[in-house]
Amino acid sequence: NRPLVLIAGPCAIEDEALTLRIAAFLKELTTELGIGLVFKASYDKANRTSVTSFRGPGMTEGLRILAKVKAEFDLPLISDIHDISQIAPAAEVLDIIQIPAFLSRQTDLLVAAGESGKIINVKKGQFLAPWDMKNAVGKIESTGNDRILLTERGASFGYNNLVVDMRSLVIMRETGCPVIFDATHAVQLPGGAGTASSGQRQYVGALSRAAVAIGIDGLFWEVHENPDKALCDGPNSLPLQDLKGMLQDILAIDAIAKGHNGN
Amino acid sequence: NRPLVLIAGPCAIEDEALTLRIAAFLKELTTELGIGLVFKASYDKANRTSVTSFRGPGMTEGLRILAKVKAEFDLPLISDIHDISQIAPAAEVLDIIQIPAFLSRQTDLLVAAGESGKIINVKKGQFLAPWDMKNAVGKIESTGNDRILLTERGASFGYNNLVVDMRSLVIMRETGCPVIFDATHAVQLPGGAGTASSGQRQYVGALSRAAVAIGIDGLFWEVHENPDKALCDGPNSLPLQDLKGMLQDILAIDAIAKGHNGN
Amino acid sequence: NRPLVLIAGPCAIEDEALTLRIAAFLKELTTELGIGLVFKASYDKANRTSVTSFRGPGMTEGLRILAKVKAEFDLPLISDIHDISQIAPAAEVLDIIQIPAFLSRQTDLLVAAGESGKIINVKKGQFLAPWDMKNAVGKIESTGNDRILLTERGASFGYNNLVVDMRSLVIMRETGCPVIFDATHAVQLPGGAGTASSGQRQYVGALSRAAVAIGIDGLFWEVHENPDKALCDGPNSLPLQDLKGMLQDILAIDAIAKGHNGN
Amino acid sequence: NRPLVLIAGPCAIEDEALTLRIAAFLKELTTELGIGLVFKASYDKANRTSVTSFRGPGMTEGLRILAKVKAEFDLPLISDIHDISQIAPAAEVLDIIQIPAFLSRQTDLLVAAGESGKIINVKKGQFLAPWDMKNAVGKIESTGNDRILLTERGASFGYNNLVVDMRSLVIMRETGCPVIFDATHAVQLPGGAGTASSGQRQYVGALSRAAVAIGIDGLFWEVHENPDKALCDGPNSLPLQDLKGMLQDILAIDAIAKGHNGN
Repeated sequence: NRPLVLIAGPCAIEDEALTLRIAAFLKELTTELGIGLVFKASYDKANRTSVTSFRGPGMTEGLRILAKVKAEFDLPLISDIHDISQIAPAAEVLDIIQIPAFLSRQTDLLVAAGESGKIINVKKGQFLAPWDMKNAVGKIESTGNDRILLTERGASFGYNNLVVDMRSLVIMRETGCPVIFDATHAVQLPGGAGTASSGQRQYVGALSRAAVAIGIDGLFWEVHENPDKALCDGPNSLPLQDLKGMLQDILAIDAIAKGHNGN
Repeated sequence: NRPLVLIAGPCAIEDEALTLRIAAFLKELTTELGIGLVFKASYDKANRTSVTSFRGPGMTEGLRILAKVKAEFDLPLISDIHDISQIAPAAEVLDIIQIPAFLSRQTDLLVAAGESGKIINVKKGQFLAPWDMKNAVGKIESTGNDRILLTERGASFGYNNLVVDMRSLVIMRETGCPVIFDATHAVQLPGGAGTASSGQRQYVGALSRAAVAIGIDGLFWEVHENPDKALCDGPNSLPLQDLKGMLQDILAIDAIAKGHNGN
Repeated sequence: NRPLVLIAGPCAIEDEALTLRIAAFLKELTTELGIGLVFKASYDKANRTSVTSFRGPGMTEGLRILAKVKAEFDLPLISDIHDISQIAPAAEVLDIIQIPAFLSRQTDLLVAAGESGKIINVKKGQFLAPWDMKNAVGKIESTGNDRILLTERGASFGYNNLVVDMRSLVIMRETGCPVIFDATHAVQLPGGAGTASSGQRQYVGALSRAAVAIGIDGLFWEVHENPDKALCDGPNSLPLQDLKGMLQDILAIDAIAKGHNGN
Repeated sequence: NRPLVLIAGPCAIEDEALTLRIAAFLKELTTELGIGLVFKASYDKANRTSVTSFRGPGMTEGLRILAKVKAEFDLPLISDIHDISQIAPAAEVLDIIQIPAFLSRQTDLLVAAGESGKIINVKKGQFLAPWDMKNAVGKIESTGNDRILLTERGASFGYNNLVVDMRSLVIMRETGCPVIFDATHAVQLPGGAGTASSGQRQYVGALSRAAVAIGIDGLFWEVHENPDKALCDGPNSLPLQDLKGMLQDILAIDAIAKGHNGN
């Protein structure tokens, strides 16, 4: 029942300067609020809706920029990998290796990630039940690595829509793994814009407060200086200026949830 | 942004003595905690899974017992009606007339309920989108009655399961109507026990905290002295002894949500 | 494994002349094709999306027109009832009393319908699993009436959309009741037009062929002279001129399905 | 509107002798019935529920056995790849490269597969709408390869269950790509047995007839000599002795669907 950690950063590494400015902002804000921070940003978006979508700077350049974030701001790093060949270079730089939701049943990827010895964050597939995640945990644990995080990011609900079943936060915690709520991907409308995913930024605050009130270990937010101009996931990213007020509520709710005496 | 109200009571009126004991308990507890209370109990369960299920004492006897609760404890009353013919007698006794979820699109029932001049609580059908509820509101408002509550109690999610889409609490509030979260029906597993519905009482606390953190006007709980022996909805009813601790957390979260400065 | 029966007619009784013209057309067409026909039309649409939607001529006038259809064309009749008080007058005229999907769990309505001694057609609620329908059957059978039809018309699938789970046709047949596929309501998009339901007429043929290939006892279609001007359910109604070609395919598939030697 | 092709074979290559016996059986049966056959078998099951599940002989040994099937029976081959590194060796042996459903949005995999010049069969993700598949098509077509098949294998419907939305067969055909119905995976219950997927073999015939009645280009079945002892996907695999009767019905329905004059 340790205090909530924030995992935050831009969807993609758009360029070095922007990435560093966002990291600087987040570092200062979370230091002021007394909340732990893990910096997230993707170097390659491997499953965009359309073949012409922006993907990022690629692994080598992306990891270089992430290493600079770490050096400059002394922040732990998380990013996602999409292929076994990426694990070794990523493990050189990252503190947490993230398995994308669509890949959460790929046995070889989970096992290879586990063998890196890093902390592994597995996003629950949109097609999985929360109790199915014990099998993802088992695949990683087969390598002797038991430092595993599980992330809720919504379940398929009809077409081009996701629903967050808040029971999943309780159920996944029964594995013993810390549970993260990825509020900004949970409000995506996958494929909702025809050749891109759309999103509903306006519900991120409500869903985040809800998840924190249940009791979670971490909150995952994509943020941007100007979400409407973001090259990726803009419709569901939060503007930096909203974060402070949202986090103050969330910290207050977290304190209640962590000391709660109901069921 | 007024403080949360609790709507609580047994699923069905099993007998007069038990109903009065539960009302007494709830009155004392909510007075101690400083939370508003509306007493709920059904006189007839009109849509049980099986024809042999317990249904309650019937309207006449049930309304007599409810009137006694009101007289003895000075509590506002809510109960559900299933047929136009029930509205007039129910309106003699009740403060709030409730439209069951399955009947939430029955135009004549909504209109006749609206014409009673009572406050009307419409439960959102398991088959409706939250934005569809503006049409239920329109049916009641066509009578000149605009004292309308909207209640979330879960949406169909595959078979024999419901999911609470917490976005619905925000969306339904955009109608201007107070929004209630019915946490104990939301954890039902409809038909999940073959000839009865099952339920998951263990998630009521988590889902209630979540909904309150989003910001709602009322919380709806079915409670019982001994849920495992309840004649109706036992698997999703809360035992009386759990209520105090759960409500203390909830009141603390409500205070944060009502003064919240995030989005 | 008797040949398929067609249940067809307009969504609502718009006026007497149109109703008789449609009945005449259907009688001639089905006689030519050698397919059994039950005429359907509703006298009151009790659960339209909006309070201002067209509802029909009402019960008394509607039953008068239906009686005329029967007298003139010697056709069995089916229509839906929404309240116990409608059962006695409806049973004077109708051969089959239909329970609307939203009301498929209302015990008193099912029991009262059963007591009429008429054939009862229960539409499966959009919120029910196919195996749940054994409970609807049990409620009617408790009256000693075992002439029961079960109708598939789609299940809730996210918001404002239905999906037909074709397994349900097989599962409901295990009750021993004849199974009907209501293809025109299955392609509704409930509430999809904001203050009205929309529909996808273009998939009725495909879904109908699919259901018949599985093996069903009856096919339910709403039809109209000019669906785009229909006062109710136009977007999912079939134009009369399409019926012959569609039915020829369907009869050919039915013959294969009824004599099938696979599983 | 060419006649239906059958894609069939065991889930996994369990051993060489069994694989060849199944291929021999299928070759003889489809020759007798006059139906085109593509042989399918997987050399590696990369996303089994549990880390201890059987996976197959691996790529090198598996492709050797598949090459032997081709040499001995002159059959076109399809198998699935899970990683870009597998495409070149697989393309040496296979006629059709299959993209697994979970990987249907992985841009690099789709593009690399397209660049092989082979026919590419993309299984629609359980989390995708049928109209989303135009984006998968676009990714492959960006390589200049337009020989693309799209396969329906069910959509997420609540937890541990899939539903086949038969409208998807019509919608995906609008891309211009041939559409395959994978009936044996469509009846899987993913994760339904805790540490394995379960399945409902008893509905394969019904769903296959339904899809063929709508009009499809190919039917995909996993088959086995003894499904109850299969090392993979046994609960949803068909026993060889059932195939002939099932296919006779299906061919008769296909002939009607392909010359159909309804909509």
